[in-house]
Amino acid sequence: MGDHQEHFKIIKNGNIASAKGFQAGGLHCGLRKKKTDLGWVYSEVPAQAAGVYTMNVFQAAPLKVTKESIAKENQLQAIIVNSAIANACTGEQGLQDAYDMRKQFAETVGVEEHLAAVASTGLIGELLPMGTLQKGISQIPENNQVGAEKFETAILTTDTKEKGIAIELEIDGQTVTIGGAAKGSGMIHPNMATMLGFVTTDANISSSHLSDTLKAITNQSFNMITVDGDTSTNDMVLVLANGKAENEALTSEHKEWQKFYQALKFVCEYLAKEIARDGEGATRLVEVQVDGAFTDESATAIAKSIISSNLVKTAIHGADANWGRIITAIGYSGESLDPDKVSIYLGDILVVENGVPHPFDEEAAKQYLLKDEVMILVKLGDANGKATAWGCDLSYEYVRINASYRT
Amino acid sequence: MGDHQEHFKIIKNGNIASAKGFQAGGLHCGLRKKKTDLGWVYSEVPAQAAGVYTMNVFQAAPLKVTKESIAKENQLQAIIVNSAIANACTGEQGLQDAYDMRKQFAETVGVEEHLAAVASTGLIGELLPMGTLQKGISQIPENNQVGAEKFETAILTTDTKEKGIAIELEIDGQTVTIGGAAKGSGMIHPNMATMLGFVTTDANISSSHLSDTLKAITNQSFNMITVDGDTSTNDMVLVLANGKAENEALTSEHKEWQKFYQALKFVCEYLAKEIARDGEGATRLVEVQVDGAFTDESATAIAKSIISSNLVKTAIHGADANWGRIITAIGYSGESLDPDKVSIYLGDILVVENGVPHPFDEEAAKQYLLKDEVMILVKLGDANGKATAWGCDLSYEYVRINASYRT
Repeated sequence: MGDHQEHFKIIKNGNIASAKGFQAGGLHCGLRKKKTDLGWVYSEVPAQAAGVYTMNVFQAAPLKVTKESIAKENQLQAIIVNSAIANACTGEQGLQDAYDMRKQFAETVGVEEHLAAVASTGLIGELLPMGTLQKGISQIPENNQVGAEKFETAILTTDTKEKGIAIELEIDGQTVTIGGAAKGSGMIHPNMATMLGFVTTDANISSSHLSDTLKAITNQSFNMITVDGDTSTNDMVLVLANGKAENEALTSEHKEWQKFYQALKFVCEYLAKEIARDGEGATRLVEVQVDGAFTDESATAIAKSIISSNLVKTAIHGADANWGRIITAIGYSGESLDPDKVSIYLGDILVVENGVPHPFDEEAAKQYLLKDEVMILVKLGDANGKATAWGCDLSYEYVRINASYRT
Repeated sequence: MGDHQEHFKIIKNGNIASAKGFQAGGLHCGLRKKKTDLGWVYSEVPAQAAGVYTMNVFQAAPLKVTKESIAKENQLQAIIVNSAIANACTGEQGLQDAYDMRKQFAETVGVEEHLAAVASTGLIGELLPMGTLQKGISQIPENNQVGAEKFETAILTTDTKEKGIAIELEIDGQTVTIGGAAKGSGMIHPNMATMLGFVTTDANISSSHLSDTLKAITNQSFNMITVDGDTSTNDMVLVLANGKAENEALTSEHKEWQKFYQALKFVCEYLAKEIARDGEGATRLVEVQVDGAFTDESATAIAKSIISSNLVKTAIHGADANWGRIITAIGYSGESLDPDKVSIYLGDILVVENGVPHPFDEEAAKQYLLKDEVMILVKLGDANGKATAWGCDLSYEYVRINASYRT
């Protein structure tokens, strides 16, 4: 375990099943050639639940079904996820398939239907091969436990690595654990993306507090990442809190509320950054910090404008300190700012001061931009608004992956 | 000459100097290693003038100076343009350089200072090497005439080919000519881009009518193209009308107004499409037509969302009929629409009908997407709003060019 910010510890090899009473697993059912393609999460008792969903007009069938589940009692006990086929733009049949998937899964793991959530990720516009899927669901073992790492693998599409974490903290003298898993990695953009995030905790917290908290944190984490500006039909983040830690119910009045909030935010931010880092074709993680904007909303728009710029992303791929592209992206963000007060840093290297170039060591900047993690800091000097966004460079590999995704 | 739409003819080898009383040229002054890098346009008499400019907060110095010139009498008689250095984000010195550039050029070609416009395109954040530039300006020959094709070359940056056209039409029994030239080809996006457009005509029209017309036409042409979503600091389109055709002054009341309007629109649309076709790394021109939206504005937003999508652009590069990415881009446009009424065509090939997949011949779609010009047609079925946007595919070459632009 490593110390982190004094308030919580990262659990070594922690995952979505680290919190008390949670299990997770995955198996290969045949939606993909070889890779594990069906995963599930299970809580021993019904958990308080909250979700956030894609803003895309075309919401995929599993999102509709999961929303219905949560709407009933604001609780979930189990989640099933398949990769390969998104079950999006599949009409009435697709919706029926999502219901059938939920029903069979709920029966198999022994929970009420409205306590089960379904999620899908993959190709849009194809029907799920229900025979294959149903055979897979029927193979979920009775104890549900075939390892959370299998779950992490099952939900991936073009991702190159699993994304999981767990941390623990003390609340009311009880150990509270928060774990999570996520997948990217194309169609990643603010306001949810081809992105699935699942967070589990044994904290005791009501679903309404959980929902408000998830929304606030998502806006500072999952909604602040972009890979390519495309927001998909299937994105969602679900949080389940089963109360097994037996702390006093968490509300914003609780004396340790901030500790919990920061811990949950850390998990969401960690998963979001892992998604950005593993963006299709990415070779490095890019963090954009904007401060001094007129408002936080304005800082957010500017940070997103920079992190979404293909020209900024290719410059970073080429380790080229081409700050002109950064200032251009700031300028077309649509936000108010005083151009003569803008300063830009690449890490510690000042490259623009008060709107005009500041002399810098090109070679040092190049070496900085070759690092695994690159930070662009923009100081606007107008007021106190700030925001942070994450993304990645744009590489040949991105084009290769996406020029041949289906075939 | 070829017939076109009956109302005007395309002049073979026509260019920005085809209209009566216009001259143009270019030379190599040393801003670039070998390529012609300094160009100019000259009218024998002061011309009514109108301009549209980038929406970027960081407007480059030459734009400020050109705006001042036009503001004085709404007239221009000459334009000077350099490539290689954008003179953007260059502070007080950059502004002074732009004034000096205008002054020397105006004196050299013998026009009043406020009748001269200046434009620059290239790298942001570097000062113009004024000695080199001034030597170049002093070499402009007395008759100004070294060929409009030299002008077309002088304004290019990463463009791979010159972009020029001229057409002629009859108004009041007089032959009216409209010519133009433009450059792209990165940082191209709706609301102007690293894009310069210059249009000359011998039509007799007041600057106020010219200005209104240019704004309306720009919104349907130059503002409807995108290469990479980045809007630059230096973009502008200027139109000069010197009245040498001696038609009765054109207003919207003139019986042949529509003929003129459509002709001017054709020139702007032609240049805009040429810019999109020559986008950095592009192998094909993509046209997106949206109809049936609730409003024209909504259709515009949806068309831009599709044409700007990296995932759509890479799919087209790979000739992959991945309509899921098109529907996704429609869905995250932020516009209202009924998902169950959306149909999508690739050329003539129906791929989505009323929100669900329509069976199609994959091989035929692939062959269609391999063409030089590809059309995506979206029918929303909600009302009568429509729009057309142009862009290009996203290739390895785009990444190569932009990962090493400065170096």
